[in-house]
Amino acid sequence: MASNEFDLIARYFARQPVQRSDVALAIGDDCALLEVPPGCQLAVSTDSLVCGNHFLSGMDPALVAKKALAANLSDLAAMGATPAWVSLAITLPEADEAWLARFCDGFFEMADYYQVQLIGGDTTKGPLSLTLTVQGFVPQGQALTRHGAGTGDLIYVTGNLGDSAAGLAVLLKQVTGTDPELAEHLLNRHYQPQPRVLAGQALRGIASAALDISDGLIADLGHILSRSNVGAVIDVERLPLSAELLAFCGGDLDAAGKLALTSGEEYELCFTVPAHQRGALDVALSHAGVKATCIGSIRTGDRVTLERNGLPLDWQLHGYDHFSG
Amino acid sequence: MASNEFDLIARYFARQPVQRSDVALAIGDDCALLEVPPGCQLAVSTDSLVCGNHFLSGMDPALVAKKALAANLSDLAAMGATPAWVSLAITLPEADEAWLARFCDGFFEMADYYQVQLIGGDTTKGPLSLTLTVQGFVPQGQALTRHGAGTGDLIYVTGNLGDSAAGLAVLLKQVTGTDPELAEHLLNRHYQPQPRVLAGQALRGIASAALDISDGLIADLGHILSRSNVGAVIDVERLPLSAELLAFCGGDLDAAGKLALTSGEEYELCFTVPAHQRGALDVALSHAGVKATCIGSIRTGDRVTLERNGLPLDWQLHGYDHFSG
Repeated sequence: MASNEFDLIARYFARQPVQRSDVALAIGDDCALLEVPPGCQLAVSTDSLVCGNHFLSGMDPALVAKKALAANLSDLAAMGATPAWVSLAITLPEADEAWLARFCDGFFEMADYYQVQLIGGDTTKGPLSLTLTVQGFVPQGQALTRHGAGTGDLIYVTGNLGDSAAGLAVLLKQVTGTDPELAEHLLNRHYQPQPRVLAGQALRGIASAALDISDGLIADLGHILSRSNVGAVIDVERLPLSAELLAFCGGDLDAAGKLALTSGEEYELCFTVPAHQRGALDVALSHAGVKATCIGSIRTGDRVTLERNGLPLDWQLHGYDHFSG
Repeated sequence: MASNEFDLIARYFARQPVQRSDVALAIGDDCALLEVPPGCQLAVSTDSLVCGNHFLSGMDPALVAKKALAANLSDLAAMGATPAWVSLAITLPEADEAWLARFCDGFFEMADYYQVQLIGGDTTKGPLSLTLTVQGFVPQGQALTRHGAGTGDLIYVTGNLGDSAAGLAVLLKQVTGTDPELAEHLLNRHYQPQPRVLAGQALRGIASAALDISDGLIADLGHILSRSNVGAVIDVERLPLSAELLAFCGGDLDAAGKLALTSGEEYELCFTVPAHQRGALDVALSHAGVKATCIGSIRTGDRVTLERNGLPLDWQLHGYDHFSG
């Protein structure tokens, strides 16, 4: 095919479903021109996904697109921000129109759902990778940061934990003999995370600190602790585990708990809430239609202690590290 | 070295020189939190640079950084925007601290000069590439777009054209026997483009359309023409050529002119100005300390016509295309 860079961009990325009134000029000029609502701060996050590292080369391009956008929107959710715009840089080994068409199907389906407009980017030749920069709004001073956790605050997570790691184990064939229906469910949980956008917005004015779980609960909670100069205790009995994860682990609660503590790419929110805000939290979460589970509390110190029934556990756990794998 | 991703980011990217008052929260949380001045629109642009395509693997990392930032700032300049923030996604084959340190030297030197604050990004493992997203401000309604050129408007370019292509030819050893001092000068012109940030701001309210020259004058001017539904005539005798380019071409004016028309990565501005704004332009450019040369005019039609002394030329020229090279 004789497509050049400009044809590709024009054909696949210009016909997007979302047209926001705060976008004065979108794709096609040197810059996009955008308008931030008065009284709002802008929240900005960037994520890269590299083929062979963050996704496998055979993965459905529509799922690659959705996962990339979900991971990025999850960062906005973790700040309590409302998504608005996304920039997309794609590097492709060749001008593969079938790949691009399928990628756009997935990308625009999710962009439409969250009403995020594609405002620009770059298409270049090279090893397959994506870099997204999402932007959203948060009312002045109401963003959920990592540095506000205080001693005595309760620690919550949304949804269930561990399914993504179980799905990855299925994908990488690290386990065999998994029931096909169960394997399919876990793969979907790995491939199609749901960013907690509404939950994040609901937590404004209630949570004292928040982030999303991309490197594993233990590793990510560690960022809240170091930023807030506090420690934490987690009761592993209270970790929210899906029936599918327990089935995958053959009913082994320890194995399931360890997956829940270390599973990356969950894109659930982990947040802290002062005890007097529990009622407000319940109301807010029920409005947002999101389940959240209290798994422990903030204490003095600088590390995470694991407990079961009030007794310390000495599980050895490691977070995910892109350069040491 | 046992560095992990977080160590690397913390060590090399957190100690930046620029601290802007409009950055409420910079690196270290899920998102940056930013404030756009009242009455301003946000201008946003994304550029990717891939090793082996946009730069060679042996290139000094400091120069890679400067070129990446210059290319991105040039897009802000082309909109008349004032630079403010940059996000940086780096993909590296390994956690090479010497490379990162040198990269940061170049990046932060230029960021400091333009008072652009690094507000976030991502560091991942994979083939070497960079994606930058820069953001800047432009007073509401004053951005320089590509769609405002009108029949009779004069066409200008800043600086000189063609040096970057000559430098690239030296770099790729497509020519031999070039005087070493001359080769050095042209290489520097290729490696270290200067984004026309002040010139872009000076053109607000004066230029009817503008863009920066990244794919070659002919190809880029074509974007103004198609967006504005007009044609153009360029007098090749008026193309601004450096003494070094003429020396490189052995005094061959045709060869130098063709390089000037097609040289990519010049990062000079091409803009159109209504004839009655000529005086305002001269004043604005002299305040900004930038040379600009009138090289032709906008007419009806849909293409670029080349002329010399009023007679048409039939030079065959091709713009740069990332996927057809």
